[in-house]
Amino acid sequence: MSAQVISGVRPWGRELADVEIAAGRISAIRPAGEGRAAGEIVDGRGRILLPSFSDAHVHLDSSRIGLPFRPHTGEPGVWNMMLNDRRNWRDAERDIAWRTTETLGRMIARGTTSVRTYAQVDVDCGLEKLDGVLAAKEAHAGRADVQIMAFPQAGLLRESGSAEILARAMESGADVVGGIDPCALDRDPATHLDIVFGLAERFDAPIDIHLHEPGELAKFSAELILERIEALDLRGRVTISHGYGLGTLPDAQLRALLERFREWDVAVATVAPPSPLSALLLAEHGIRLGLGEDGQRDYWSPYGDCDMLERTWQLAFTNGFRRDVHIEHAAAIATMGGRSVIGSAPALDGVADRPGLAVGDPADLVLVPGDTVAAAVMDRGRDRTVLHRGVVVADQLELAAAAS
Amino acid sequence: MSAQVISGVRPWGRELADVEIAAGRISAIRPAGEGRAAGEIVDGRGRILLPSFSDAHVHLDSSRIGLPFRPHTGEPGVWNMMLNDRRNWRDAERDIAWRTTETLGRMIARGTTSVRTYAQVDVDCGLEKLDGVLAAKEAHAGRADVQIMAFPQAGLLRESGSAEILARAMESGADVVGGIDPCALDRDPATHLDIVFGLAERFDAPIDIHLHEPGELAKFSAELILERIEALDLRGRVTISHGYGLGTLPDAQLRALLERFREWDVAVATVAPPSPLSALLLAEHGIRLGLGEDGQRDYWSPYGDCDMLERTWQLAFTNGFRRDVHIEHAAAIATMGGRSVIGSAPALDGVADRPGLAVGDPADLVLVPGDTVAAAVMDRGRDRTVLHRGVVVADQLELAAAAS
Repeated sequence: MSAQVISGVRPWGRELADVEIAAGRISAIRPAGEGRAAGEIVDGRGRILLPSFSDAHVHLDSSRIGLPFRPHTGEPGVWNMMLNDRRNWRDAERDIAWRTTETLGRMIARGTTSVRTYAQVDVDCGLEKLDGVLAAKEAHAGRADVQIMAFPQAGLLRESGSAEILARAMESGADVVGGIDPCALDRDPATHLDIVFGLAERFDAPIDIHLHEPGELAKFSAELILERIEALDLRGRVTISHGYGLGTLPDAQLRALLERFREWDVAVATVAPPSPLSALLLAEHGIRLGLGEDGQRDYWSPYGDCDMLERTWQLAFTNGFRRDVHIEHAAAIATMGGRSVIGSAPALDGVADRPGLAVGDPADLVLVPGDTVAAAVMDRGRDRTVLHRGVVVADQLELAAAAS
Repeated sequence: MSAQVISGVRPWGRELADVEIAAGRISAIRPAGEGRAAGEIVDGRGRILLPSFSDAHVHLDSSRIGLPFRPHTGEPGVWNMMLNDRRNWRDAERDIAWRTTETLGRMIARGTTSVRTYAQVDVDCGLEKLDGVLAAKEAHAGRADVQIMAFPQAGLLRESGSAEILARAMESGADVVGGIDPCALDRDPATHLDIVFGLAERFDAPIDIHLHEPGELAKFSAELILERIEALDLRGRVTISHGYGLGTLPDAQLRALLERFREWDVAVATVAPPSPLSALLLAEHGIRLGLGEDGQRDYWSPYGDCDMLERTWQLAFTNGFRRDVHIEHAAAIATMGGRSVIGSAPALDGVADRPGLAVGDPADLVLVPGDTVAAAVMDRGRDRTVLHRGVVVADQLELAAAAS
C-alpha cells in the first residue's frame, strides 16, 4: 500500500507541505511537491491544517440540533432550567439516540473528532440519556473518540436515589464522574463532594464538576474540591467546568487559587461565556484548558451549532484577543487543549505552543480555509475536510458515508 | 405597471404573506396566495421578512475587508491604536475608496441598507478618508442610505489644527459631528466638548461621541455631555457610542443617568462587546439603541465581517438573551433600532415592538431563512435577499449588478 498523503496544506498556517499518513498517524511532513502527490487522499488546496477540534464540554443528550426550533421556556437558575428540561425532553420529535447521533454527526462534519460529552443521570431519566449517548458513540465509533461523563444535573441530595443512579451509570459505560454546584444546588457541599470523590475512587475514574457558582461561593467550592484532591492524591484527575464565577475574585485571590490548581493539575473546561475566566491567566499558570459547545439548541439555551470553529471565535472574542498569537492560542485550546482535559494529550506549553501535528501524532485533523490561523478563526469558513485516524470522515460539512 | 410582490414571506416570522410594493414602499400585505403571484419580484419561499439591517456604528474608512489578512500590530489603548493605524493605512494594497466601497458592498449584500459610518479626520489624513467614504456612498447610492459622521479619532486638542479639519469635514459633506473620550484622550473635556457642540450648532448637525472611558470617568463625561445638551436644548440630537464603561456603575447611579438620557432623548450605539450596557435596561428607559459592526478586519481589530445578522447574534449572546422575545428584540435593535439612532425612525416602543413592516413603510427589507426570528438569529443563514426602496439590491450574499 502506497503512502497516504494530504497534499498542499499549511500545518498551523506555516509553509506549504505534504503530510503523509501511515497506520492512522502522521508519518512524514515534507515540503509540498509539484502537482498531485502519489497516494493523495486529500487535496489540501493550500488550506490550513490543524489538529481536529476537541470538544471538552458538550451535552449531547440534551441537544435539539436538527429538530424544529423551539421557543425557550426555561426560567433562570439551574434548578428551574433542569425542571424545564425534565418537563419537555421526552416530547421531542425524535428519540434521544437519534438526537445524540445527529448532533455528534454534525460536530464531526464540522471538524470535531475528540469529545467529552455529558449524559444526565437522575431519578427522572435514569440511564436513558446515558444509553442515548452510548448509542451516538457507537454509531460514530470510526469517526470520533468519545468520553462520557455521568452528570448528576439535578444534584445528588435533593432527590432520593440520585447517588445510586450515578453509580449505576459508572457501571454502565460512563468514563467520568460528574458533580455540580456543591453549595448552590445541593446545599450540602461536603456530602455532595464526598459522594463524587467516593465514586471516583471506587471506579478509578476522573472527575468533572460543573461550577456555576458566583465569586466567593465558587472559591469555597473550589477549595473543598482541592481539599479532597489533596487528601486522595488525585493530581491530574479533576476538571472544573465553567468556573466563570472565579473570574470575579480579586486578582490576588484568584492567582492564589490558580497556583493550587497548578500544583494539583486541576483542569478547566470553558464554553466561552461573555465573561470567561481569562484564558491567558490560566495559561500563565500552566493550567490545562479545554473548550466546549455546552448544550446546543436545547431546552436550556438556543445557542450552539456543533461548530467548534465558531466556538473558537467566541473564545477569542470573549477573551478580547486581537493579537494573532492569542487568537492562534484559542485555536490550540479548541484542538489540543480539549485533549489535555480529556486526557489524551499533555497541557499546552504556554500561549505559543502549537502541538498535534508532529510526526507520530494521531492523524486526527481538520483542514480549514484562511490566510493565517487567526484569519481562519475570524472567517470560520466552511471549506473543511476532517480526518480521524487518517481516514477522511467528513468533507464540506458533510459526513463521508463509509467512514465507520 | 402591475404591483410588485414579494410572495410567500413571514413578516417578523408571522403568518405567510404576500407583500406588495409600490413607489418604493410597502403598499399592501395580504395572506399568501396560491402559487406564484402576479408581479412577483422575489419568491419568498417561506423565509422571514425583516426590515433591512441598519448599521448605526461602522468605520468604513478603516476596513481591510477583501484584502489579505494582516497580523495585528496595535498596542492597547485608543492613542496607541490610532498611531498604529496612522503608521499603516496608507500602505494598504488598495486605496481608500476601493476599501470603503468594497466593504459597504459586502454589508449591503448581507442585508444592511441603512448606515451611519464614521470618517476619521485628523492632521495626518486630512479629508482623504472622508472622501473615501463619500465615494462609497456615491457608488452605492441606489442600494443604501449612508449618513457620515466626521470623526476626530486623534482628539481635537493633542494636535494643532484638528478642530479646523473637523469643521472642514462638516463643510465637505459630513452629516454628523463626532467626538471621542473627552477626558481620557484630550485631557480637557470641557474644551473638547465645547468644540464639538459648537460645530453642531454652527452646522445644525447631530452629535455622536465615542465613549470608551471606564465607570466613573464615563459617567463624568456623560454628565458633561448632558449639561451641554440641556444648555443648548439639543434634545434628541446626541448619540453616545459604546458607553460600555457605564455598565459597571452601581445600579442606582446608572439608572439615574439613564433617566437623564431618557429626558433628553440621548441615543446609544453599541457594537455588542463582551460586556455591553444592558439592552434591556436601555429599553426599560425608552432609550434609542442601535447596533453596529465597528471597525472590520482593520488596523484596530481583526473582528467584523460585514454581517449584521452575525452581529445581532453577538448582541443577543453578550446580553445573555435566551427568551425568544429578547432575541427578537435584538433583531429589532439591529434593524429599526439603528434607524432610530440615525434619525429615520422613532425609538422602539419596548422589547416587544416589531416595527418597519407596516403598509407605508419604506420597502427596505431583508429575507432570511429560519423557523422563527429567534432561530434566524441563531442560524445566521445565508439564503438572503435584500431590497432597498423596493428594488432587489442583493441575493445570496451577492450584489445585484443593476441596482444602482
